Amino acid sequence: MTESLHRLDALDLAHRMADGMLRAEALAEALIDRSAALEPGLRAWAWFDAAAARRRARGPLAGLPLAVKDNIDTAGIPTAYGSPIYADHVPAVDAACVALARAAGAWVLGKTACTEFANMTPCATRNPWHLAHTPGGSSSGSAAAVSAGLVPLALGTQTAGSVIRPAAFCGIVGYKPSRGRLPRAGVKANADTLDEVGVMARSVADVAWLADVLAGRPQPAAPAAQRPNVALTLTSRAHALSAEMVGAAEAAARRLAAAGAAVAPAGPTDSFEALFDAQRTVQLFETARALAPEWQYRRRALSAGLRRLLAEGHAIRAEAYAAALQTITAANAALDTLFGPADVLLTPAAPGAAPASLKTTGDPLFNRPWQLLGCPCLTLPGGLDTNGLPLGLQLVARPGNDRLLFAAATWAEGVLQSPDISHARCR
Amino acid sequence: MTESLHRLDALDLAHRMADGMLRAEALAEALIDRSAALEPGLRAWAWFDAAAARRRARGPLAGLPLAVKDNIDTAGIPTAYGSPIYADHVPAVDAACVALARAAGAWVLGKTACTEFANMTPCATRNPWHLAHTPGGSSSGSAAAVSAGLVPLALGTQTAGSVIRPAAFCGIVGYKPSRGRLPRAGVKANADTLDEVGVMARSVADVAWLADVLAGRPQPAAPAAQRPNVALTLTSRAHALSAEMVGAAEAAARRLAAAGAAVAPAGPTDSFEALFDAQRTVQLFETARALAPEWQYRRRALSAGLRRLLAEGHAIRAEAYAAALQTITAANAALDTLFGPADVLLTPAAPGAAPASLKTTGDPLFNRPWQLLGCPCLTLPGGLDTNGLPLGLQLVARPGNDRLLFAAATWAEGVLQSPDISHARCR
Repeated sequence: MTESLHRLDALDLAHRMADGMLRAEALAEALIDRSAALEPGLRAWAWFDAAAARRRARGPLAGLPLAVKDNIDTAGIPTAYGSPIYADHVPAVDAACVALARAAGAWVLGKTACTEFANMTPCATRNPWHLAHTPGGSSSGSAAAVSAGLVPLALGTQTAGSVIRPAAFCGIVGYKPSRGRLPRAGVKANADTLDEVGVMARSVADVAWLADVLAGRPQPAAPAAQRPNVALTLTSRAHALSAEMVGAAEAAARRLAAAGAAVAPAGPTDSFEALFDAQRTVQLFETARALAPEWQYRRRALSAGLRRLLAEGHAIRAEAYAAALQTITAANAALDTLFGPADVLLTPAAPGAAPASLKTTGDPLFNRPWQLLGCPCLTLPGGLDTNGLPLGLQLVARPGNDRLLFAAATWAEGVLQSPDISHARCR
Repeated sequence: MTESLHRLDALDLAHRMADGMLRAEALAEALIDRSAALEPGLRAWAWFDAAAARRRARGPLAGLPLAVKDNIDTAGIPTAYGSPIYADHVPAVDAACVALARAAGAWVLGKTACTEFANMTPCATRNPWHLAHTPGGSSSGSAAAVSAGLVPLALGTQTAGSVIRPAAFCGIVGYKPSRGRLPRAGVKANADTLDEVGVMARSVADVAWLADVLAGRPQPAAPAAQRPNVALTLTSRAHALSAEMVGAAEAAARRLAAAGAAVAPAGPTDSFEALFDAQRTVQLFETARALAPEWQYRRRALSAGLRRLLAEGHAIRAEAYAAALQTITAANAALDTLFGPADVLLTPAAPGAAPASLKTTGDPLFNRPWQLLGCPCLTLPGGLDTNGLPLGLQLVARPGNDRLLFAAATWAEGVLQSPDISHARCR
């Protein structure tokens, strides 16, 4: 049939596709062949990109619906950054990550609600496991949409814990890449040192699939499971963890060990204690500057909570900011001691399950150090607490080891039991 | 299966779609249903448009590849307007007609070559019926691409005869709408009074299908054939027609009459003679102004031919321009006399078949009057001349009667024999 597809009228083609008799890929290939044969003499095209046509029709994301966090620009689709200031904003250009996903065949099913400028003021989204609980934030809608089965793939962003925490609270897989691995162009800037684009899905394979496309290195197959060496750490802030979260992390460590992984306690965490506060300092200092236009011209349209954060950011002295950035160097030098022989750290994704409140999105405390270090992080569902809410287990690799992280997480995902998403009933 | 689609991982969905087991429409509907059920409580979305998702998956153009003339903006795709000045230009925003086609599910397979700023300097495109002949212009690539089977649908633009003439020369169906029927936003302006977006395909049904979507009135089915009253006119410039073109028009009139249409000579054409020159005056005067930036700042990057045209346009006095516009009023008042009882005029689409040259795109003489009047025009293949090149028959309706034109053309298409496009061998 391919031989003659170029002779069919548009309506014939439309009917065949609607009837499932003709696939987009076959049509694209037929037309690419036709142009390759005739164009050298005909010269009809001013622009023709066979590779782009192929990517669209048989790209790694061909036909997949994608949810995009509302602080990421989407050409022609409203993008409000979680703020009434931008209620009517429709970007002219896609963010790089959106353009790349569309070029690979994905399409934008919707924009997901996020907190005000991806900071701490909650949006309207609820937790699908219990509607009175927060879904986490700032990528609230992305996590809830994937968890509730509204969409299989979502983009989020993380400056402190905005991908890992909501993914953990909603019982899905969330991934935050090594610093700079995914392009950030077209994301509403928050804190330039820290902002990263992240990915959410219901499996490690899906997360890796999308992330590798966005990173410009699409893979031929889902990552192969690889049994990792694991170092367990509750960090120097273990006192902030719920007992159930501690239990879930320790139980996971035992199960990974029972399945054959080498699991040991992580090395001393003293060098990392300073990172918790330093990350917050860097974020507030930079966010106050990134949101300078809104602060200067539209301050009354900002929430009281964000105004407090920005005022705090403006009050940070340049020396304190420089000192906070300096902590990265010291902690990086101590990474080998922390990891020891381990490929990945196993550590809580959040202090516990999602708080029973819609006035907070929870605490990013257990995300701050890894964010400041630029480590790739991935959260896996780690069972349910006694209220039936998911607990998230975070795997952290050294900066740049994203693919090792995927391989280890694929293995761990097979060992640890995931909660069935049919339990998320949106009540 | 729809029941559980929302529970499948992205990779599962991708595989099912690649295997033809899952259609885009079924997936979209499943996800729309899922959101409708859960979103009232969950509130994950900041933007969600079920209608847009449906249009994409089952829109009237779902999955159809579209070629777009290179003077029409395409977001993220190079758009050079046929000029080296814009060789690196990539628009941020789609032209309205492109955005509408994409929203209805179409995708841009390529941009088609056009003459310099859609004026008279030829581009590299050849005529697929004979590569030493011009394909016509300015929508040269669009006509050649459709004729050669590179793509089933193409967008063009017409200021004098830039859709009808190349479509006629390439043996396909071309349509130029009533003034203002298709949105022009994002088309590189040429002459504001005259510029129109046009459509090319290999059947009247396809042309009408796409045009009606772009006009914001998608139809449930292809237009029903309707036998028209026909008035034949060779216009007051009949002396410029080739003998074969006259023969083709008269033969077509006889065949339509034999099939039951009332066919009569059109009324007196005296009131219309002034339109030929007036159209050219309006075009040159307005184009000189629309291209003022290029004329002022990049004159040496314009071809000598275009510089001559623009200089001529600048030399036209405002009084002459006003007088040219005035001819529209007089001719409009005489339209009833010209048409008489006819629904459509039958008239040559061009002086003859495509000239045996690549240094000209042919003469838009037989398009100028209808363009200035804002009449909808459609060209049908009218057989081949003795060199084996197509001759185009133009049907013209009164302004606003586009759907009547489609119905009449659908009937005429069934009566007149179309050349088989397999004869176009690109040699």
